[in-house]
Amino acid sequence: MSQDPLVVFTPSGKRGYFPKGTPVLTAARQLGVDLDSVCGGRGICSKCQITPSYGEFPKHGVTAIEGALSEWNAVEQRYDDKRGLAKGRRLGCQAKIENDIVIDVPAESQVHKQVIRKAASERAIEMNPATKLYFVEVAEPDMHEPSGDLERLGEALKSQWGLGNVTADLRVIGKLQPTLRKGKWQVTAAIFQDHKEDTGQIIELWPGLHEDGIFGLAIDLGSTTIAAHLTDLRSGEVVASSGLMNPQIRFGEDLMSRVSYAMMNPGGDLEMTAAVREAMNTLITEIASEAGIASALIVEIVFVCNPVMHHLLLGIDPVELGQAPFALATSEALSFAARDLELSAVNGSARSYILPCIAGHVGADAAAVALSEEPGQSEDLVLVVDVGTNAEILLGDQTRVLACSSPTGPAFEGAQISSGQRAAPGAIEKIEIDPASKDPRFRVIGCDLWSDELGFDAATASSGITGICGSGIIEAVAELRMAGLMDDSGLLGSAEATGTPRMIPDGRTHSYVVHDASATGGPMISVTQGDIRAIQLAKSALYAGARLLMDEMGVDKVDRVVLAGAFGAHISSKHAMVLGMIPDVPLNKVFSAGNAAGTGARIALCNKQARADIERIVRQIVKVETAIEPKFQEHFVAANAIPHKTDAFEELSKVVSLPAVSFNTGSESSKGGRRRRRRD
Amino acid sequence: MSQDPLVVFTPSGKRGYFPKGTPVLTAARQLGVDLDSVCGGRGICSKCQITPSYGEFPKHGVTAIEGALSEWNAVEQRYDDKRGLAKGRRLGCQAKIENDIVIDVPAESQVHKQVIRKAASERAIEMNPATKLYFVEVAEPDMHEPSGDLERLGEALKSQWGLGNVTADLRVIGKLQPTLRKGKWQVTAAIFQDHKEDTGQIIELWPGLHEDGIFGLAIDLGSTTIAAHLTDLRSGEVVASSGLMNPQIRFGEDLMSRVSYAMMNPGGDLEMTAAVREAMNTLITEIASEAGIASALIVEIVFVCNPVMHHLLLGIDPVELGQAPFALATSEALSFAARDLELSAVNGSARSYILPCIAGHVGADAAAVALSEEPGQSEDLVLVVDVGTNAEILLGDQTRVLACSSPTGPAFEGAQISSGQRAAPGAIEKIEIDPASKDPRFRVIGCDLWSDELGFDAATASSGITGICGSGIIEAVAELRMAGLMDDSGLLGSAEATGTPRMIPDGRTHSYVVHDASATGGPMISVTQGDIRAIQLAKSALYAGARLLMDEMGVDKVDRVVLAGAFGAHISSKHAMVLGMIPDVPLNKVFSAGNAAGTGARIALCNKQARADIERIVRQIVKVETAIEPKFQEHFVAANAIPHKTDAFEELSKVVSLPAVSFNTGSESSKGGRRRRRRD
Repeated sequence: MSQDPLVVFTPSGKRGYFPKGTPVLTAARQLGVDLDSVCGGRGICSKCQITPSYGEFPKHGVTAIEGALSEWNAVEQRYDDKRGLAKGRRLGCQAKIENDIVIDVPAESQVHKQVIRKAASERAIEMNPATKLYFVEVAEPDMHEPSGDLERLGEALKSQWGLGNVTADLRVIGKLQPTLRKGKWQVTAAIFQDHKEDTGQIIELWPGLHEDGIFGLAIDLGSTTIAAHLTDLRSGEVVASSGLMNPQIRFGEDLMSRVSYAMMNPGGDLEMTAAVREAMNTLITEIASEAGIASALIVEIVFVCNPVMHHLLLGIDPVELGQAPFALATSEALSFAARDLELSAVNGSARSYILPCIAGHVGADAAAVALSEEPGQSEDLVLVVDVGTNAEILLGDQTRVLACSSPTGPAFEGAQISSGQRAAPGAIEKIEIDPASKDPRFRVIGCDLWSDELGFDAATASSGITGICGSGIIEAVAELRMAGLMDDSGLLGSAEATGTPRMIPDGRTHSYVVHDASATGGPMISVTQGDIRAIQLAKSALYAGARLLMDEMGVDKVDRVVLAGAFGAHISSKHAMVLGMIPDVPLNKVFSAGNAAGTGARIALCNKQARADIERIVRQIVKVETAIEPKFQEHFVAANAIPHKTDAFEELSKVVSLPAVSFNTGSESSKGGRRRRRRD
Repeated sequence: MSQDPLVVFTPSGKRGYFPKGTPVLTAARQLGVDLDSVCGGRGICSKCQITPSYGEFPKHGVTAIEGALSEWNAVEQRYDDKRGLAKGRRLGCQAKIENDIVIDVPAESQVHKQVIRKAASERAIEMNPATKLYFVEVAEPDMHEPSGDLERLGEALKSQWGLGNVTADLRVIGKLQPTLRKGKWQVTAAIFQDHKEDTGQIIELWPGLHEDGIFGLAIDLGSTTIAAHLTDLRSGEVVASSGLMNPQIRFGEDLMSRVSYAMMNPGGDLEMTAAVREAMNTLITEIASEAGIASALIVEIVFVCNPVMHHLLLGIDPVELGQAPFALATSEALSFAARDLELSAVNGSARSYILPCIAGHVGADAAAVALSEEPGQSEDLVLVVDVGTNAEILLGDQTRVLACSSPTGPAFEGAQISSGQRAAPGAIEKIEIDPASKDPRFRVIGCDLWSDELGFDAATASSGITGICGSGIIEAVAELRMAGLMDDSGLLGSAEATGTPRMIPDGRTHSYVVHDASATGGPMISVTQGDIRAIQLAKSALYAGARLLMDEMGVDKVDRVVLAGAFGAHISSKHAMVLGMIPDVPLNKVFSAGNAAGTGARIALCNKQARADIERIVRQIVKVETAIEPKFQEHFVAANAIPHKTDAFEELSKVVSLPAVSFNTGSESSKGGRRRRRRD
């Protein structure tokens, strides 16, 4: 047995014998223990904090005595005086091994720390960002060996960090000399390393040790909203989240109307590109300000979006996406400078990455959902539905994954609904209709009370009750069906037929009054026949897409449904199934994945290996094109009724007991604003 | 022996047996014969023209009968009708081998054709540009296999040309879809392949076969002038050359005054950068217009320049170059997008390459001279002097090469000379002074007659006689010395002492009148004592630099002198040696290399392998820093006299017979504008 002391690191359990006097950081590196260091062991970055444990450790076969580490030294004292070191903590680069010892590496000292993705999920992201910080000491220039400052910085990065082939753009080269001299030949470099290449690019330089961190943005660019998560690229923590309406809405509400705008107006694509890039800069400035960081500390951006937004963001005319064969200009992931998108608000050398598209109608957002939800890793057959203006649908398991996109329209987001509104305080998000009295009770965003509970009026006084959001309208329509106020063709009954004065005439059809504040100058919130037709069209499209994939897979049912998208997070599984939005599965097999596309963007931001993974995965996904598949139209028409009866639904109906209702008067006309699609 | 026909290609002599029916282009490719093709054998580009020879070829062991190639076909006829095919020519992709044959590949059908660099030199540039044209047929999109257009273009480039890893920037991706469709899925791509990487970048795309060529610019960015050569990247031909004054002159005549300007004025470096980039755009627009090409066809630019211009072009504050240790921000060659320099006049995706710098005072221009003149390949010891505002000096042979830079100032370019002017029509460029009469005869730029020849006045009437250019002032000073009008300290004699009324008083010194048109309102052109002092300072600096390298090399003489620079092309070797500008060698060992830096830039533009070569070569060059070497000052002071006597010069003086002259009156004051440097 060796005379050298034994060192056991926890939580990894890695162990080894090291000569007395070996710094803990050195031992950790030799064992491959995940212990962080930005300054390379110079005692100035404090990232390598460890906690020694003393006493008997029978489990590890170690007895650690006081003095097993070298004495607290002047470097540690200076750091403690200046910034404070938690009790029991030592700096791994300063504390030297003198005797057998157990050393714990706390989570915050791990480079590849695991970041909890969201409260609702147990899965974690391993930190392995493409851009990291490196502190280096650079050799001073020598007239007799006249190499450039950049070349000497490159040598320092190679010898001190093992980084070869490091380059810099002209902006960074331009600031190199003053930065090196200000830092007295010590600088911190933020270096981007592509996941596909063995090269590095210096994104930014700071004199001395840079302690303000670096940040990345995960941006989910939707047709209607742009959502951004500002993420600390060292800890993985989301330091701020913010959103903005997509200003392209003024060119067209949905994707196809934007494509039409580009077709009809020469240069229209450029207008839309300029609008979205400008909004992006606004959003970036806002989110940096909200987090209290300089926006120049944002060194990376990852984008996910549908194909039309993808093209419009990148400055590509989306006209080909509006007509068969729906050819993408490029389907592969792209890595480029953020300044190529005129994103002046971030660091001038910041990098951008956009996930690959799956097909002309199935974009980088669907790829991000695949990265986040990993249907290809699933043991049971899972249907992943990302509900937005377009629904992206994935169906698969470990054997294969299919994907399609379905044009649901904006109804699920509360648009094209008479009392519809965005999910914001004052919007009705939950609703129940009593089958006996036919009266509703509801909850609004921003208040935890139901409308029939004490204090509701006071609690909602400031926001008011302003409309119905996407999840509210789904519930309302399903509840109207369950309360017997609507038949299974989707027709609302009259006051006479239903026996409730809440049913009021509206042209040749009827509307259901949810909340009437018109006497006090407030809004009258109702569900109209047109609203129901809009929801029917949307849900039929969604359902038909899912069915098409099931046909392709050769199955009649799925094992599990994952609802993604901000909307998916709020929707009630029961109501979605009553409505026939999704194939019938047991209610406990319906899950919400939150904003899975945004999560996929965050994963690609925090872990460059995930970029390689998704680029490989999308090539394996089988694409199904809804627009040319006759079966899609068949499914679409067949899905119009509420509910769509299947065996599985019979199971469900035992719980929700739908009445048989019919109000067919022959006088209904479609008022939904959108023409109902029929097969010719 | 094979039954297959034997094919012999000339001039390469490559030979092989091929099955009947093999196209000539296919046979050439299999044998590695240099036969061009842009369209890949589709019979539309006509680059693969060949000339079959029939008859007995005992040398090749072939008897070629008529009918050894397949019959003239419809594709050839169509091409001949449309554009004309020279008599005897066939298209290599159409003509098929039917029997033994000798096939000549004319020079214009060779890819790696040799381009004569300049009339004065026998050396050639082999065409191997970084950017080349490729015609491809791209698969149409298929909804069931939804890959992007860029990916299908990439597959076509790989399968049809063997080009892998081809990418494109967002500008090219943005024009990809309309170009593919306009070209009916046939496009020509200009693809840049870096000399260091196994990747390609699509610089431009044209629908169908692009026949207007692509062009590159070789730019020699001097302190005083910017010279550009527009080069056809397929043929290597220089289609236009143009020059412009460097607008930075308004910030300082010489390099150090520009560095001072940057030091004294915050943002001054940015002003100078903006000025030179703007001038570059002007120059590019002019030269494209002169050549009658669209400036967007310019897809590459190669720059050579001294270190200060290098930094100011790239947007780097040159302040560090003004003080020891003269650290460059970066010394290595750089490859980047032309748009990073705001060069909007060229193609939006054009690439730029700047040669490596050798040291803080020895720039990419010296590297270009090394590439052009190849001192490291020389069997004898060669001194290469590139004379400009700064002189770059190389000394070496196959064993090693030394380099330095010497601050000669602008006198050699006609600046700071009382009657000095740029080399332009009307400038005196050659001068002789009769030792008996002390009268001059001269020639001016734009006229082949001497001033004492019949018809000179008429021939120069339009330009006039306006001043003395750089080569003229060198000759004038040397002639003054040879005519006994100046002593070897450089002092001009009085009219009395010299016996000519052309010597007129000028303060306490004297001037020599070369040409006096003041009676008719024209200029009086003279050489003043101040002019002589300026030339003495310049030539001393030049000579001292050369001597310093000779000391370092441990030699007393060199075998050969090469004078480079536009000025070097016009200077008289004899006068340069009388003046003591260069170390003494036999007159027939002094050569002019013309604009060697510009030639080096052209080589790097036309042959990407040369970029790899020079990047390797500069690492092997030993740099000598004149500014810190005490011996430089010693040599500088010692070199002030005219002539500097050496053994070799004794040889020379047999030819030019210099008189012993002395006019030392003790009253001379320095009027040269620049303070004479002395050692303390």
